Amino acid sequence: MKFIVETSARHVHVTEADLKTLFGNDAVLTKKKDLSQPGQFACEERVTIVGPKNSLAGVSILGPTRPSTQVELSATDARSIGISAPIRESGDTKGSAPCKIVGPKGEVEISEGVIVAKRHIHATPADAEKLGVKDKEVVFVKVATPERTTIYGDVVVRVSDKFALAMHIDTDESNAAGCTGTVEGEIVKL
Amino acid sequence: MKFIVETSARHVHVTEADLKTLFGNDAVLTKKKDLSQPGQFACEERVTIVGPKNSLAGVSILGPTRPSTQVELSATDARSIGISAPIRESGDTKGSAPCKIVGPKGEVEISEGVIVAKRHIHATPADAEKLGVKDKEVVFVKVATPERTTIYGDVVVRVSDKFALAMHIDTDESNAAGCTGTVEGEIVKL
Repeated sequence: MKFIVETSARHVHVTEADLKTLFGNDAVLTKKKDLSQPGQFACEERVTIVGPKNSLAGVSILGPTRPSTQVELSATDARSIGISAPIRESGDTKGSAPCKIVGPKGEVEISEGVIVAKRHIHATPADAEKLGVKDKEVVFVKVATPERTTIYGDVVVRVSDKFALAMHIDTDESNAAGCTGTVEGEIVKL
Repeated sequence: MKFIVETSARHVHVTEADLKTLFGNDAVLTKKKDLSQPGQFACEERVTIVGPKNSLAGVSILGPTRPSTQVELSATDARSIGISAPIRESGDTKGSAPCKIVGPKGEVEISEGVIVAKRHIHATPADAEKLGVKDKEVVFVKVATPERTTIYGDVVVRVSDKFALAMHIDTDESNAAGCTGTVEGEIVKL
């Protein structure tokens, strides 16, 4: 059973408070397009991520707002601005890397929250049953491409009835497999 | 049988003529350190690679000079400066991407030569025999890391008595596997 493999470019999740600091007291997130996961959307609002060595401009915010601000970079991105970010699941930001976030109306210094996302599969309980996997299970996923077929290990499965079936990888992982256009993966037993 | 997996950061190979244009008529390459492949070395000389969208400064030259100038970028690098570079084996640059190369004394426009390197293993005939592979054979290589174990497909084996045993991947591929420090790989049959 195959599923879609989506590449997540660098992005930011923000709290209501940080949104207001960055974009002004009346700011609300402006939906640009819906993402595959129900209720999640890319926003028109963009920020600059500042590290000790350099910065990344025009980084998208993904909505809705969240209980804590989180910056997801590829390892290439993080290194390019001098940040040493750990590989973590979304939400697991304790002790992760600091950075400065700059918006048009203000800036925020976060003491932690910068991560390189751990590759993962979102699945509903029904999807998980069809795939023969359980929540938190770690699997291998094969992505066959014309020039850089790759089998990703350490892929964590996350199961919730709020999800839609999709695997998420970052731009380094996507480039390593030569992903272009619509890409599919399948779990392989090794 | 395991072998070392080395990450090649973005770099340039230059002809004698381009070296002189970039660094002056008396220029010779200055060895900074030897690389794993016999006779190959990283140089003190650095250039800027200019694409339509942006540029990459401080890019290393690898010596010795070659019959044609070649720029090896990761797909992340190429995209960041607006270049669409094909995945190619070193030397196979026909119809690959153009760019401008800027040095302290001059600049060179190349009409082709920018590639994303195809992942590969360098092996001597004796190594190849031990590994049970032949020149040009395409294999899977497993790189086990604490957080991002990865099996690379489409790895081409190159056999020559001028080589030393090592696999070469680019920074995207290295980051996709969470490679840090000394990394080893092994061929797996799938």
